[in-house]
Amino acid sequence: MIIRFQPGTTAADVQAVRERLESEGVRTILSPESARPIFAAVDKVPPTLQAEIESNERVESTVTPKGAWRLAARSFREAPSVADIGGVRLGAGEVSIIAGPCSVDHLMEEAAIQVRRGGAHILRGGAYKPRTSPYSFQGFGKEGLRKLKDAGEKVGLPVVSEIMDAAHVGPFVEHDIDCLQVGARNMQNFTLLKAIAQVGKPVLLKRGLAATVDEWLYSAEYLLAGGCQGVVLCERGIRTFETATRNTLDLTILPLLREITHLPVVVDPAHAAGIASLITPLSRASVAVGADGIAVEVHPDPSQARSDADQALLEGELVQIVAEARVMAAVTGRRLHAQPRIPDKA
Amino acid sequence: MIIRFQPGTTAADVQAVRERLESEGVRTILSPESARPIFAAVDKVPPTLQAEIESNERVESTVTPKGAWRLAARSFREAPSVADIGGVRLGAGEVSIIAGPCSVDHLMEEAAIQVRRGGAHILRGGAYKPRTSPYSFQGFGKEGLRKLKDAGEKVGLPVVSEIMDAAHVGPFVEHDIDCLQVGARNMQNFTLLKAIAQVGKPVLLKRGLAATVDEWLYSAEYLLAGGCQGVVLCERGIRTFETATRNTLDLTILPLLREITHLPVVVDPAHAAGIASLITPLSRASVAVGADGIAVEVHPDPSQARSDADQALLEGELVQIVAEARVMAAVTGRRLHAQPRIPDKA
Amino acid sequence: MIIRFQPGTTAADVQAVRERLESEGVRTILSPESARPIFAAVDKVPPTLQAEIESNERVESTVTPKGAWRLAARSFREAPSVADIGGVRLGAGEVSIIAGPCSVDHLMEEAAIQVRRGGAHILRGGAYKPRTSPYSFQGFGKEGLRKLKDAGEKVGLPVVSEIMDAAHVGPFVEHDIDCLQVGARNMQNFTLLKAIAQVGKPVLLKRGLAATVDEWLYSAEYLLAGGCQGVVLCERGIRTFETATRNTLDLTILPLLREITHLPVVVDPAHAAGIASLITPLSRASVAVGADGIAVEVHPDPSQARSDADQALLEGELVQIVAEARVMAAVTGRRLHAQPRIPDKA
Amino acid sequence: MIIRFQPGTTAADVQAVRERLESEGVRTILSPESARPIFAAVDKVPPTLQAEIESNERVESTVTPKGAWRLAARSFREAPSVADIGGVRLGAGEVSIIAGPCSVDHLMEEAAIQVRRGGAHILRGGAYKPRTSPYSFQGFGKEGLRKLKDAGEKVGLPVVSEIMDAAHVGPFVEHDIDCLQVGARNMQNFTLLKAIAQVGKPVLLKRGLAATVDEWLYSAEYLLAGGCQGVVLCERGIRTFETATRNTLDLTILPLLREITHLPVVVDPAHAAGIASLITPLSRASVAVGADGIAVEVHPDPSQARSDADQALLEGELVQIVAEARVMAAVTGRRLHAQPRIPDKA
Repeated sequence: MIIRFQPGTTAADVQAVRERLESEGVRTILSPESARPIFAAVDKVPPTLQAEIESNERVESTVTPKGAWRLAARSFREAPSVADIGGVRLGAGEVSIIAGPCSVDHLMEEAAIQVRRGGAHILRGGAYKPRTSPYSFQGFGKEGLRKLKDAGEKVGLPVVSEIMDAAHVGPFVEHDIDCLQVGARNMQNFTLLKAIAQVGKPVLLKRGLAATVDEWLYSAEYLLAGGCQGVVLCERGIRTFETATRNTLDLTILPLLREITHLPVVVDPAHAAGIASLITPLSRASVAVGADGIAVEVHPDPSQARSDADQALLEGELVQIVAEARVMAAVTGRRLHAQPRIPDKA
Repeated sequence: MIIRFQPGTTAADVQAVRERLESEGVRTILSPESARPIFAAVDKVPPTLQAEIESNERVESTVTPKGAWRLAARSFREAPSVADIGGVRLGAGEVSIIAGPCSVDHLMEEAAIQVRRGGAHILRGGAYKPRTSPYSFQGFGKEGLRKLKDAGEKVGLPVVSEIMDAAHVGPFVEHDIDCLQVGARNMQNFTLLKAIAQVGKPVLLKRGLAATVDEWLYSAEYLLAGGCQGVVLCERGIRTFETATRNTLDLTILPLLREITHLPVVVDPAHAAGIASLITPLSRASVAVGADGIAVEVHPDPSQARSDADQALLEGELVQIVAEARVMAAVTGRRLHAQPRIPDKA
Repeated sequence: MIIRFQPGTTAADVQAVRERLESEGVRTILSPESARPIFAAVDKVPPTLQAEIESNERVESTVTPKGAWRLAARSFREAPSVADIGGVRLGAGEVSIIAGPCSVDHLMEEAAIQVRRGGAHILRGGAYKPRTSPYSFQGFGKEGLRKLKDAGEKVGLPVVSEIMDAAHVGPFVEHDIDCLQVGARNMQNFTLLKAIAQVGKPVLLKRGLAATVDEWLYSAEYLLAGGCQGVVLCERGIRTFETATRNTLDLTILPLLREITHLPVVVDPAHAAGIASLITPLSRASVAVGADGIAVEVHPDPSQARSDADQALLEGELVQIVAEARVMAAVTGRRLHAQPRIPDKA
Repeated sequence: MIIRFQPGTTAADVQAVRERLESEGVRTILSPESARPIFAAVDKVPPTLQAEIESNERVESTVTPKGAWRLAARSFREAPSVADIGGVRLGAGEVSIIAGPCSVDHLMEEAAIQVRRGGAHILRGGAYKPRTSPYSFQGFGKEGLRKLKDAGEKVGLPVVSEIMDAAHVGPFVEHDIDCLQVGARNMQNFTLLKAIAQVGKPVLLKRGLAATVDEWLYSAEYLLAGGCQGVVLCERGIRTFETATRNTLDLTILPLLREITHLPVVVDPAHAAGIASLITPLSRASVAVGADGIAVEVHPDPSQARSDADQALLEGELVQIVAEARVMAAVTGRRLHAQPRIPDKA
């Protein structure tokens, strides 16, 4: 249950309600919301106690979210929340583009220049790669993080990269990676979620291949409960019976997410499609349906890419995706994020 | 295999190639395409015979579709095909809206007026209803067809209605229903497909809940092979593990369909979402990704609807969907279909 | 709701309760159960009326099935029901084997002899074939039904064949086909279900590829409500993300079906596996988990089969399946059905 | 590609072939098989080189597995492999039962006594619990491992417990946990797989909820390539559209696994069913279809269980499962494993 107070309720009044609940063994968590006091009761509140609280004149309303997630619930915040990724504010009525190679490689800097020129806002690149086969390229690790960050700084873009293990937190912090990505396969790696929640960086949380919306929001709840300040959901396609495309992009849940969570949502159309020619129209549809951002793979020379070559885009295709995102943002009452100014040294 | 000839190739030259194939036991079907001669070889063509045909200087190219569907294949036509539904041309670079109540009932005429006023182009309404339970309302049958057609004529819109059985062809013809809809549950009711292919009306073919793109196109092929002149595909959501929404709208396959078939595609977002508030954004996304049309349910008073009340829209919501479809059509280089003029008598 | 009376309750006492419900607009249906009176209330019963009925001392108990199916519910009968297919009683604590070619062809008689020799109890063979592609062999139709029935009579086995359209009921009756099969694609072809419910023959109802247990039982309810006396459910694999096998045999729901329905259940492992070598162990598991029967495809010469050659078994494999079914029936407290005696004339 | 030599081929002859491949950049791995030399070529072998190798008279045959897994492939071993879990040999023509509480709790010792008395062979219990919600009980951690091992030693049974993070390897080794379990959610946690492959203990690898057989075997390959000597696959149900049961137990792939991998396979029917009453028949079916073992949850007092109370069995139900497994093993030509002798001190 989430308890929402009248704006202006004093901290003491709120505290009294919290203590009443805690005295009955119900754990509570206070929202960082500034517009009005809001807190969540983690455990089930008995009906009589709920009635007592609802009769409190300072309590405006109580809301029972569909699942047992609390901090991720729409009603835990007054307005949709925003994640600040190195200065790019995801979710504040602006649409942002994340782009870069699937795996960091020797063409990282060239890729970054194309991503910048193409109009994107955040640079992506994989240093630790989760690969189905143990014999596939596993990423350059720490060295890859350095290359990615260097390239990002060169072109003035914040960077995001996937973290696969709690033990790797050190290198991500050391290289000041602006956003940590949790891959689909690790969405329910709870040890990892707990570890990165405390790092102080926003997290891009991909939906698991067969994860329900409920499970996805519970994983976001692990991050939020652990202290993470900027959780971004990333829809990347679910596994269905259809094999004509690699996965099925679940755009149906985007408007639903708007109703049940305050978290920003980006869409990665490439992994769902698995075919480069489908990515542009799917990006367009994603912004049209309400996504706060799009994540795509761009590589200067897909034939040299170490992974996912089939769905890597060229600079020209990125330019088109950005152009269409600008239009789609406009016609849905938002605007495309302005690219950050390149620092003078660059 | 599909054999495409140089524009201007004589009928005799084409016929010679067909006869060569037929003489080897390969069945062939000629495309109605006017821009150039094209025909399909239904059966597998032996490699040596294929080489022989490809060496024919009148043959521009041969194409082997992914599946064994032929008449539905993109290469069987020069341009995307168009279905003429009572004057509304679906698929000719225009976007059309199909709207009306799930079931025809006593408010049919009022619904039709709202659909017309709301800006839609084709009126829908179910007279024969496929219901999961034998105890649910099964539709008004023949009487429903009459009410639907009367309402359509009154407001000057062509009508579409679902046919569930080959034995009902009579009433559909008698009431001059402009387009026959095949429901998801009947997508592989091959007896029905064969029967309605010969009626001389366009067919709206819904995708089965668990039908692959391949199976769907094979069902379209049944219609085309049987003589149907205007097949329209309708994506309406597939069954997946996700239960937060009723089904998952598969927009991922829309751009793929463009590449592999010439048939127009409309999207029915309501059955996928199952929640009225999701329908507007999903309609927007559908047109953005390239759909030729949108099919939605509109009812003057959802509380009185005999079926699917949860996803019935009001006139105001239809107006918004039409307005957004107009914008989405424009920014994807198409235009919203103009509503037909209401006949003088109305 | 299902109302179960004390054994020995008079028809008049039962009738009084029915009339009480009917007077409130609740439709009722009487069970053919002889052990005690049982009837189902089709519509929702208001709580106060339910309490009134439960206070009737002749009423032993009321049961609310999970779905709105009534006649298919376990509690509508005292014991599991039995379907009599030309003398073979499916579901009476005995295990039966259905076998025969996928499509009836020129080797039908030879197939029948092998099926009889192999130890099976019911002969199957497809005369009307639902094929994904319009260019595939569609079955011999009426002529196929005759060949199948002739072969069955020759070897003294009842026969089952798939019916695809209500308009074909005539030939099935004319050739005295002992059991009508509804294929997976037609499980929700409600017009067909209504038509064959009145034929007076048992029906083998295959589960749709993506049908939930609930939908499946509703389709059974269509048959029962229409008057069909012997409905047999047939699990044949569901469509999942896994492509290593053609479908996934859902044995998990077999023990659940025992709890929620009185209908007998057979398993067709061949269509799920799609690989002949998997059929024998899956048949074993099906009987072990509680199936009342197994349906397999047997062909004297799979290389000549007109369909499904990859999963057709040879006589020796059928012999092994029957032998293992005998053991599995025994160790689960049942017994393998005895083959019918061959009539003297044969 | 897997290269199998004639029995008795000298190490030098084998080495020559390996060097030939390595000289072309193809990585190779030698099988521990003693019956004959076998090695795997990890990378793709060019056709001409393959032909050269196949012409070598010491080479008996080459096999190309369906996927790129090598060490897990059936042909990499002469006979199915065996995992030795604290003296219980899984996969050697014997059937073993794994049982214990979902979570280790204060009744662990009592549970162990019931598991022993009930006839099981390996004791399970969760100390680190992957829970969907961050607010659910997360397990007793290290303390739980100690309780589990103590209980196991008391009753003379080896123990298995789930490991969720590479950083926890220490406690598992310290407490001499006999088998490490990888949960469904971590099946593609490659960092974890690499870490535990080197621990020197067998691993029970659960199939991911939406993992294909191919992906599952690749994860097994990670373990094998990392040095793990005893990989056991555990089928536990896949996520499908069906919601009547929690998941769908995929028994269809068991006989397929026998054909494509040498690894032993156990089945955990409880998580698939989610309903206690279905577990006994599903266990029976699992052994019937060929499983080397069954894993079930047993708790002395399910009402006190910290997790999965709905599917916890009582001692009497375990006794029945063991009894039926004995019969099913016998009728499939195997035998139930004999329980280890309780050490004198117990």
